[in-house]
Amino acid sequence: MKNEEYYKNHIATIEDFPKKGIMFRDVTKTLEDAEAFHNCIDDMVELASQYDFNKIICADARGFIFGSPIAYKMNKALVVSRKPNKLPRPGHSYAYSLEYGENMMIIPKDSIKEGDRCLIIDDLLATGGSALAMKELVKMSKGIPVAAIFYIELPDLKGRETLKKGFDIPIHSLVKYEGE
Amino acid sequence: MKNEEYYKNHIATIEDFPKKGIMFRDVTKTLEDAEAFHNCIDDMVELASQYDFNKIICADARGFIFGSPIAYKMNKALVVSRKPNKLPRPGHSYAYSLEYGENMMIIPKDSIKEGDRCLIIDDLLATGGSALAMKELVKMSKGIPVAAIFYIELPDLKGRETLKKGFDIPIHSLVKYEGE
Repeated sequence: MKNEEYYKNHIATIEDFPKKGIMFRDVTKTLEDAEAFHNCIDDMVELASQYDFNKIICADARGFIFGSPIAYKMNKALVVSRKPNKLPRPGHSYAYSLEYGENMMIIPKDSIKEGDRCLIIDDLLATGGSALAMKELVKMSKGIPVAAIFYIELPDLKGRETLKKGFDIPIHSLVKYEGE
Repeated sequence: MKNEEYYKNHIATIEDFPKKGIMFRDVTKTLEDAEAFHNCIDDMVELASQYDFNKIICADARGFIFGSPIAYKMNKALVVSRKPNKLPRPGHSYAYSLEYGENMMIIPKDSIKEGDRCLIIDDLLATGGSALAMKELVKMSKGIPVAAIFYIELPDLKGRETLKKGFDIPIHSLVKYEGE
């Protein structure tokens, strides 16, 4: 596993984006470096390997960038949790608040079957809204949320506490930005 | 390589979505089958392997699902072409029309360097608007668009002709829906 410093060297910080007071952690710098991107996915795969699961659920849109190669590498199915008006099939939906604004996530009703063991993947754990939405969508579908793995975590925003509500799951991240 | 029939069995068709007259080809059925998803990425990787390139460019949001694992598998860098208001860095932008409506794509100005050889990846070649936008963004960045690979192609919408405008590149797809 690469250390936090390695990944922080491949993440740009942009102040006041998308609005005043937000320190935006830009993962595109990681993606644009072939080796850093490969290491990042390999390290997330290593964390994922300790869990027994058959599906990955990841969030529109940056979550796709991380969830998809992990699913491919580990030969798992992929469920993409979408924003409104994107899904052509009947869906389960869950509304949540996020670091800036509100949103809703939707998955097809038949994409997760009863007993499916689902790993939650996203680029960022901030307030935990989108990850909680995915956990709730898994439960609505009678699946089992197994664990959640993020590239970046902002512990000051207490996303772990939000995500653990009601049904505790293990949570991992490769990089934490705390008090900075 | 799996044949078209195989993939068509893993793609759902929804009539009149997102608006009347559109036959929506739903790739989530492919993703939700671990083996079909793995085969799909492997076959796109096989097509990609004949080209010399160092970066993949893919389109927000479904393009990420295909571009990211191909970049990971082939140890390439990944450039994500985003919709408006998503990018925190100064960008190149290109407006285009799509099968239903209009859109704009934006990439960071420094994500593609002069001489970078870029492979274009997307889930769907319909009218060709988003793929043409990516080709133009590569050229604006002084990179070289090398080829374009899609999971699905709708030849009736003449996306190939649009994408070849000005600067011809090889175009591949795993599945074509023609006159259906």
